[in-house]
Amino acid sequence: MSEDALLSTVTEAQNQRVEITRVLETKASEVSDLITVEEPLEIRIAPHGEQEFTLSVTMRTPGADRELALGFLFGEGLITGPEDIRAVEHCGPPSPDKGLHNVIKVSLSQGVEINPAALERHTYTTSSCGVCGKTSIEAIKVVNPHPVEKRLILDRETVLAIPPALRMQQREFAKTGGLHGVGLFDRAGMLLRVYEDVGRHNALDKLVGFLYGARALPLKARGLVLSGRASFELLQKASIAGAEIVLAVGPPSSLAAELAQEQGITLVGFVATHGFNIYTHPERIC
Amino acid sequence: MSEDALLSTVTEAQNQRVEITRVLETKASEVSDLITVEEPLEIRIAPHGEQEFTLSVTMRTPGADRELALGFLFGEGLITGPEDIRAVEHCGPPSPDKGLHNVIKVSLSQGVEINPAALERHTYTTSSCGVCGKTSIEAIKVVNPHPVEKRLILDRETVLAIPPALRMQQREFAKTGGLHGVGLFDRAGMLLRVYEDVGRHNALDKLVGFLYGARALPLKARGLVLSGRASFELLQKASIAGAEIVLAVGPPSSLAAELAQEQGITLVGFVATHGFNIYTHPERIC
Repeated sequence: MSEDALLSTVTEAQNQRVEITRVLETKASEVSDLITVEEPLEIRIAPHGEQEFTLSVTMRTPGADRELALGFLFGEGLITGPEDIRAVEHCGPPSPDKGLHNVIKVSLSQGVEINPAALERHTYTTSSCGVCGKTSIEAIKVVNPHPVEKRLILDRETVLAIPPALRMQQREFAKTGGLHGVGLFDRAGMLLRVYEDVGRHNALDKLVGFLYGARALPLKARGLVLSGRASFELLQKASIAGAEIVLAVGPPSSLAAELAQEQGITLVGFVATHGFNIYTHPERIC
Repeated sequence: MSEDALLSTVTEAQNQRVEITRVLETKASEVSDLITVEEPLEIRIAPHGEQEFTLSVTMRTPGADRELALGFLFGEGLITGPEDIRAVEHCGPPSPDKGLHNVIKVSLSQGVEINPAALERHTYTTSSCGVCGKTSIEAIKVVNPHPVEKRLILDRETVLAIPPALRMQQREFAKTGGLHGVGLFDRAGMLLRVYEDVGRHNALDKLVGFLYGARALPLKARGLVLSGRASFELLQKASIAGAEIVLAVGPPSSLAAELAQEQGITLVGFVATHGFNIYTHPERIC
């Protein structure tokens, strides 16, 4: 895909106006305020010529639902290339009662199958136990088929400049304070695309889903910036997308650092005004 | 239960020492640092006299696993009273390879059944769609069988004092910065119990699981304080536990406010040094 296509940064997250009581010092007043919209999104799978089924329900901020669905499927290792998908569409238009617009249907190409059991690591199974007898990371990880390359080097000043740029582009966060942000950056530290959501995993799914549709996966010499902490789940999604560097404003968890180490990702945390911590593969930061 | 039992505030979350590269201004140095532990916990259900099965796998910070499992089951409406459970135990001791200690088995009393399909709203089903044709909140909520009472009134000074008290008691947060905290408070604004976890839903599950084991549910004249934002899922769990007031340091989502309004919960957000916002049922704050 062209850089031009990437450069049209869009955040489509929604907010809603509510009447609240604001207490400031000793004074209470009735004011109008904006809050972030959270709604369920049901992801339905329509296999070619077979009965459709519900794969997942996630709580998300509406906007970029198609990207969210595709990014979720890609991040779980359930689809691999754009040719796997025939169509992605809402089951109904936006409406006050929301019902059908909160359902998105992913129609698979002929010959493509999605096994819902692949999600079982998140949920119940009747099979023998999933975690016991394995190391934690082996039991839960989706394997990245693409080795992470080493083509992205950032200098320290660039690292420090990226999170403030993300914050600047989080249009909805500025209004409600209620959204996580995820951004894609290049060698120069330029933010190419930003998504927001009440759920940080959703924000990353939206970005990955956009890149999937743009045939820009696996990423080449690109990194991701996260507005909050770096969990295992986020590093897993970053790894599947082929990100070389992950910058987080908050700290990582132990399993996030373990996965980054194993997958060859440079994981940087606590990026603040005057410095940051490099947890794994420091050779990409000079 | 007695107040004395509640007053033994415990946070058992774990951290791990790692070697990192710290960059400060123009200087990089190798230092040792603490990060929050994140590990999978597999919750297995052992029905009386029937085959056991895996209900869920969640990423959590080890510590208070028994409480986490019980609180999760209670919050999902899958168990209702302490008599439903015969035993809750890890499948193995703590060990370097972690395997069996990351599995917890909940043995049900005779006659108690848990239907894994009750979790289907979170995941795949082959039935007709779960969200479409219903309002969002109807499609996803677990109904609270106990009407929320109106016995808890807080003055403004007390509201302002509770989040700093939570922060003070978040022992692990002070070390790693990587944990959400949830606290239980009484009429005087005193924190009775605090839990921490990488996942805010887990922190609340741990607290609810403790209260379940202590036969202190539904809550009487008690409130909850959250270190971050207030999502639908957290309000759902608070509602099932019978909390009258929920204080959040961050903002609520639209669906969290909608559920609080409907369930009669006073939802307060953005609690900071000089003020806060009341989103629903302001009559409990005077």
